[in-house]
Amino acid sequence: MQIQIISIGDELLMGDTVNTNASWMGQFFADHGAEVSRVYTVGDDTAHIRETVTAAMDDANLVITTGGLGPTHDDITKTTIADMFEAEMEIHEPTLEFVKSIFEKRNIPFSKSNYDQVRVPENCDVLFNKKGTAPGMWFEEEGTFLAVLPGIPREMKALIRYQVLPRIQERTNGIDRSFARHIKVAGIGESTLSDEYLAEVGPYLTNNISVAYLPSPQANTIRVNSRAATRKKANRKSEALVEYIYNQLGPYIIGEGKDLTLSEATGNALRDHSLTVAVAESCTGGLLANTLTDTPGSSDYMVGGVIAYANRVKVEQLNVDSKIIREQGAVSKPVALQMAKNGAQNLDADIGISTTGIARPGGGTDEKPVGTVWIGFWSTNAHFALKTLFTNDRLLNKERSVAVALEMVRRTVLDIETMPYGIKPHHA
Amino acid sequence: MQIQIISIGDELLMGDTVNTNASWMGQFFADHGAEVSRVYTVGDDTAHIRETVTAAMDDANLVITTGGLGPTHDDITKTTIADMFEAEMEIHEPTLEFVKSIFEKRNIPFSKSNYDQVRVPENCDVLFNKKGTAPGMWFEEEGTFLAVLPGIPREMKALIRYQVLPRIQERTNGIDRSFARHIKVAGIGESTLSDEYLAEVGPYLTNNISVAYLPSPQANTIRVNSRAATRKKANRKSEALVEYIYNQLGPYIIGEGKDLTLSEATGNALRDHSLTVAVAESCTGGLLANTLTDTPGSSDYMVGGVIAYANRVKVEQLNVDSKIIREQGAVSKPVALQMAKNGAQNLDADIGISTTGIARPGGGTDEKPVGTVWIGFWSTNAHFALKTLFTNDRLLNKERSVAVALEMVRRTVLDIETMPYGIKPHHA
Repeated sequence: MQIQIISIGDELLMGDTVNTNASWMGQFFADHGAEVSRVYTVGDDTAHIRETVTAAMDDANLVITTGGLGPTHDDITKTTIADMFEAEMEIHEPTLEFVKSIFEKRNIPFSKSNYDQVRVPENCDVLFNKKGTAPGMWFEEEGTFLAVLPGIPREMKALIRYQVLPRIQERTNGIDRSFARHIKVAGIGESTLSDEYLAEVGPYLTNNISVAYLPSPQANTIRVNSRAATRKKANRKSEALVEYIYNQLGPYIIGEGKDLTLSEATGNALRDHSLTVAVAESCTGGLLANTLTDTPGSSDYMVGGVIAYANRVKVEQLNVDSKIIREQGAVSKPVALQMAKNGAQNLDADIGISTTGIARPGGGTDEKPVGTVWIGFWSTNAHFALKTLFTNDRLLNKERSVAVALEMVRRTVLDIETMPYGIKPHHA
Repeated sequence: MQIQIISIGDELLMGDTVNTNASWMGQFFADHGAEVSRVYTVGDDTAHIRETVTAAMDDANLVITTGGLGPTHDDITKTTIADMFEAEMEIHEPTLEFVKSIFEKRNIPFSKSNYDQVRVPENCDVLFNKKGTAPGMWFEEEGTFLAVLPGIPREMKALIRYQVLPRIQERTNGIDRSFARHIKVAGIGESTLSDEYLAEVGPYLTNNISVAYLPSPQANTIRVNSRAATRKKANRKSEALVEYIYNQLGPYIIGEGKDLTLSEATGNALRDHSLTVAVAESCTGGLLANTLTDTPGSSDYMVGGVIAYANRVKVEQLNVDSKIIREQGAVSKPVALQMAKNGAQNLDADIGISTTGIARPGGGTDEKPVGTVWIGFWSTNAHFALKTLFTNDRLLNKERSVAVALEMVRRTVLDIETMPYGIKPHHA
């Protein structure tokens, strides 16, 4: 089933609203074996809507429009579609009763524009909208389907789930669909991943199996798609490919699942080993703690930490030797090591993790350019630091430092020998 | 200038990535007097890309594609466009030098796929990409322009700002365009803003002047648009409206500028008064420190802080009275007050700011439901706390707590009497 989406609204084109409806539908359908092959965004413009609906219906099995069904003068989707089909408008009685009852409950008078809300083209099946006042509509023409839905996310989602999906399933029963698996990897760059580790992926990509790499600063996703009648059969088809990926990438794989984050994977490793962690952050300025505590249940292993942005806080709160700061600078291996160790010991945590780096534009030297970051690790078994060199983009450096720090913890806890991005550990 | 955007990538259709690029461009061009009339999202599919680029170029003055310029096998935009124009590929030497220097710095070998990255169709002008390894490209055919950009947001944004916009402006010189002013307000809800404070805005909205409200958790934006040949003339036209907005919203206005953040406005207030700040965070788990340190130059006023996620860290590192935690709970006014004061005094900062709340699903009680947050403030002149009640969405609660905390600091430093959202201060 090929689906095309038409998102309608000037606010989308002007960027005042981000089109999260389209991405929600994309995910929802991908998870249910249907495929969105195109998304159009158009403004509140009769000619554009008409032209786009016509083009999409020529191309797809199902076209879904969202938006433009409200009561104000710029909501023109319904009349445009009715004109397209040369259909008369008629009142949909069940919706009229329902909307009247809502208005009565809220003590609002029922006005002329509300009658317009409950009128639908005579040739549609109404998709009853329990969450709002604008009915959804379902049309069929020459074997192509058109669903016209409101743009309010909770109304759209309920109609997709309970009205559109069953209609799709009824019509695709027994037909092959595409199912996805998301394998997450950390501590490895996208091009190293595809060029070196998965260079020999070609032979696996037959029989409607495909692979995609989705980069993100913390953890890249390898998405494996395969077509079959059921998820179980699809997984069986892609089994050899998935095994190849696991063999090639072993320790880089942090888990599976679209929503799995590196913070969660690291947290799971800590929880599984009953270990606690404390942070001592300089250049990341709180992002490491924040990323750890974004994961629900992180209080199981996250004790807390110290943000030592000023050097005197490193000395006074983390007992870093001020002589070392003077002699080797705050961005140095011994400072990172002391911060990690003293941070953990002061807060009585099993593991301490520290960051100290040059994020400030103009703060670099030849020897320590902007982007130099030392990341320290301490536990009773291990005490070392990783030196990295990122860009001169302040926020990106914070993010990448945190990614290295989290993955360094995950690997050490799980006894994986190599460090993220193959960085060499400098031991205490 | 009519612009159409083509966003390329299976991950967009499948909803793995939300199309924030298109909305960013929509806003950016609206701010600079150009209009996005359509957005297409297509997958990594040669035929679809080709067909959509052709259709868009028939229709618009400028077509912008983003995505599909990376080094992996599913990145096919560049070769598809080259085929369309029947153009040979050639190495772009300046990009080659630049990419090689990046790889050298990071100590990564330069591989075959990296050569593909620096090759471009012979008929394009290269839009030099200082932020990444994929060059942008600019084509012209029969008076229509085509810009081919990478999909990585920071790369795309820099290219739009510094390469695409000047080319548009050169070609639209002297024509009336729409110019925007962004007035940022904090500590006030969107509906209060529009329904109460700016209820009488109607009479100002004539003569091509319009106003829009763009909500965000930290600071809402009031965007004033007006059409004229130059920014100066546009500002003169909207002057009366802007004056009305300033009169109505006075202390809620934190400044102007699209990119102005609440963190920056609060930081400016601190710097102007030569004050330093330290944080003591429980429920926000590092987000407050992180938000403060996202602003360049924040080391002028940000000393650091303590993340006291576990209660014993509150006692041991912030000298909170354990008896009070036992009797009144960690989420209470006296704990917030002690955290703010002791946090500041331990780190020798002028101002201390604290958060303690119930973020954990299931952690609430009738008296203190999930979403209850106490935010504490201490300086030599003031010592008080604000009690707030948010939702049961963990991440949203963190964000909103930080917004209240930052605005509380800004208002206190600037001697503004009311607190954000009219919350009543509980004094020590």
